[in-house]
Amino acid sequence: MIDETHDAKRKSWVASADGHSEFPLQNLPLGVFSPPGATAPDAGARGGVAIGDSIFDLRAALDAGLFSGDAQAAAVAAAGPTLNPLMARGATLRRALRRRVFDLLAEDGSDAARVRPLASRLVHPAAACTLHLPAAVGNFTDFFAGIHHATNGGRRRDPNNPLNPNYKYVPVAYHSRASSVRPSGVPVRRPHGQRKLPDEAAPSYGACRKLDYELELAVWIGPGNAQGEPIPIAEAGSRVFGLGLVNDWSARDIQQWESAPLGPFLGKSFGSTVSPWIVTAEALEPFRVAQPPRPAGDPRPLPYLWDDADQQNGAYDIALEAFILTASMRDKGQPPHRVSHSNTTDLYWTLAQLVAHHTSGGCNLVPGDLFGTGTISGPTPEGWGSLSEQSADGTRTLTLHSGETRTFLADGDEAIFRAHCRRDGFAAIGFGECRARIV
Amino acid sequence: MIDETHDAKRKSWVASADGHSEFPLQNLPLGVFSPPGATAPDAGARGGVAIGDSIFDLRAALDAGLFSGDAQAAAVAAAGPTLNPLMARGATLRRALRRRVFDLLAEDGSDAARVRPLASRLVHPAAACTLHLPAAVGNFTDFFAGIHHATNGGRRRDPNNPLNPNYKYVPVAYHSRASSVRPSGVPVRRPHGQRKLPDEAAPSYGACRKLDYELELAVWIGPGNAQGEPIPIAEAGSRVFGLGLVNDWSARDIQQWESAPLGPFLGKSFGSTVSPWIVTAEALEPFRVAQPPRPAGDPRPLPYLWDDADQQNGAYDIALEAFILTASMRDKGQPPHRVSHSNTTDLYWTLAQLVAHHTSGGCNLVPGDLFGTGTISGPTPEGWGSLSEQSADGTRTLTLHSGETRTFLADGDEAIFRAHCRRDGFAAIGFGECRARIV
Repeated sequence: MIDETHDAKRKSWVASADGHSEFPLQNLPLGVFSPPGATAPDAGARGGVAIGDSIFDLRAALDAGLFSGDAQAAAVAAAGPTLNPLMARGATLRRALRRRVFDLLAEDGSDAARVRPLASRLVHPAAACTLHLPAAVGNFTDFFAGIHHATNGGRRRDPNNPLNPNYKYVPVAYHSRASSVRPSGVPVRRPHGQRKLPDEAAPSYGACRKLDYELELAVWIGPGNAQGEPIPIAEAGSRVFGLGLVNDWSARDIQQWESAPLGPFLGKSFGSTVSPWIVTAEALEPFRVAQPPRPAGDPRPLPYLWDDADQQNGAYDIALEAFILTASMRDKGQPPHRVSHSNTTDLYWTLAQLVAHHTSGGCNLVPGDLFGTGTISGPTPEGWGSLSEQSADGTRTLTLHSGETRTFLADGDEAIFRAHCRRDGFAAIGFGECRARIV
Repeated sequence: MIDETHDAKRKSWVASADGHSEFPLQNLPLGVFSPPGATAPDAGARGGVAIGDSIFDLRAALDAGLFSGDAQAAAVAAAGPTLNPLMARGATLRRALRRRVFDLLAEDGSDAARVRPLASRLVHPAAACTLHLPAAVGNFTDFFAGIHHATNGGRRRDPNNPLNPNYKYVPVAYHSRASSVRPSGVPVRRPHGQRKLPDEAAPSYGACRKLDYELELAVWIGPGNAQGEPIPIAEAGSRVFGLGLVNDWSARDIQQWESAPLGPFLGKSFGSTVSPWIVTAEALEPFRVAQPPRPAGDPRPLPYLWDDADQQNGAYDIALEAFILTASMRDKGQPPHRVSHSNTTDLYWTLAQLVAHHTSGGCNLVPGDLFGTGTISGPTPEGWGSLSEQSADGTRTLTLHSGETRTFLADGDEAIFRAHCRRDGFAAIGFGECRARIV
């Protein structure tokens, strides 16, 4: 539903929320933060809304009596140290919260005279706040829905048949590790592990020699399902609370040695980084598009994965970028090097298909569950969303604008992901950064 | 440490805790239950200790002022709706709790005169209580440490090289699904899913046709580790809070079709069943044994997985049994059919090796994490702990004592696991049942 909260002509009284900001009045992503002056990094953690270079404090707004009805119920559910209670509720409450926060932050809002004198209590400079994980991640599932990434990886196994026979029937996925998900900005230690390169006679234990990032969309799940009760495809899209970015850091050498026959384990579970702001399903409404038609000859998905409405309107047009900022670039004040750019329309499956498949056997989703879509690569090299693709598993060197070269990540390198939505007639919105440095 | 709580001559004033019970005074496993007359199935959930056919109520004992010092701190941590707070503490507190509960329940305990008049408040008939999951499962990791199971499965892939090259170097594992773990007794719905048998041209969606159980040891993790800080092998064993049983239900047809290249997903995540009682590391002290020597020619594990003391004393001698109770047997009052019996000494890796490996890349374990060891099969057919092994993936028919035949599980079948420890000079202890019916 595209409503008044998408009106591009409306402005916020928070001056920085202008046309240059990722967080204009039309975005209003949700997150969890500690306000300036907190006694400990996670003290006073509470829900907030990004607006320009500031954060709107939901607890402060509740304390000021600015909510009523559904919006109040939603704000209460969002004002604690995780967004899980709000995630457990449906879109109605989330929408009521969005409408009221839009009104409170609009220059010409209905309560402007009452709100503006409270500005210093309601809005904090984001740079002075600490951002946390937006939710307690109950379970983290990582899909493999980026078909160009799957093809690039499979080509090294079998150049003529890069995709496994199940790929175009099954939204392939594995369970990943929930405990090691961290918010943007928390450094990632280069993992040690057991690895054996193909030309080595025996495995050894040591620091990862093929440390990679994977550019993925993060899907945060709202209301779940009872165990044993699959979510039909026609309802599956409504279980998406909102979207962010996730870096599914990958230790390729550990992964390559450990994965037979049960799949990735320690090569993926030393850490995953998510962007702290969740762009809600409501904010993304104008950027929904038709799922690109399947190439001729591809099988039609089984009925439990097929819904005409989902095909017509269940994909998203989100532009994605991956950058590397080396220690040298940082020292010299240089900008990061853009390695790739792709789009969520490069996904082979819609998010509703991922939800429907995940629950099709009766597995219960829980509010706050996190999906990664799998690496989103475009069809050509400038779209390849991991270094294993960019470097052909380390056999091809990538030259950065600084003149430095990489196959995989060096210590001190920072991987930075960004995402934006643009459509004529609508305010452009961004996702904020998902970034972390290797230490 | 084998102390007075293992003295086989001591008896409990709870008469049913005699030599025939799985839960004598020397066992004292921990769980979470709701007492008789609870207003809802999960109302009043609290920690308890199994004793004979009864449950000792930790909250009631706290209310009666029966604890002090470390034992009191432990009882407070164990008296809530999950054992996670106690799991977060180390062995010292757990041991203090064990010693005090032993003393409170001993016929000749130091406070017998004070305790016995309170018996009706302190002890509930287990049959009138509801047992819950003992912990909120943060993360569920399933290993593959049963080498005979791995060999049996691999033989179908390659009769001459059934084990992958990594098997004897890496404690292979995958992340499994935490949200769908349920306590013993909760029925399991036969999952639907997408599956394609090798002789079918295209996949279809429907009810699982190869529904299996897997007999595994459940390992409950106590204190965890900070992200990025591996637990050394010499300390790893101490992170085990206690043990139970887990049925890693498996939809073989779904699993076989979906698993390339990322491993099992929906074939395993529709549900897992755990026994409700956690037999603590302390109760198991008398049943620790040397890890059986590796067969000649097997590689020595890398140093991060090797500790002499662990090899000498880090395995457990726990006898395991798997039964099927069909609907017909149930109707006729017949006992279940024992399908297999094996022993935890059939594991190729010690529990300390599993913990050390899991954290070796920096992955953080969390109190309440659950490991499955992987199916524990013995070397010969009577020890094979899954029906896919017993039936050679459905190609061989198993005849039950009732005359019924099976390849995989039929609706109405109940899989029942039991485990016991016996050693001369010590009281025998049991794990209680891990059972659930297919509906």
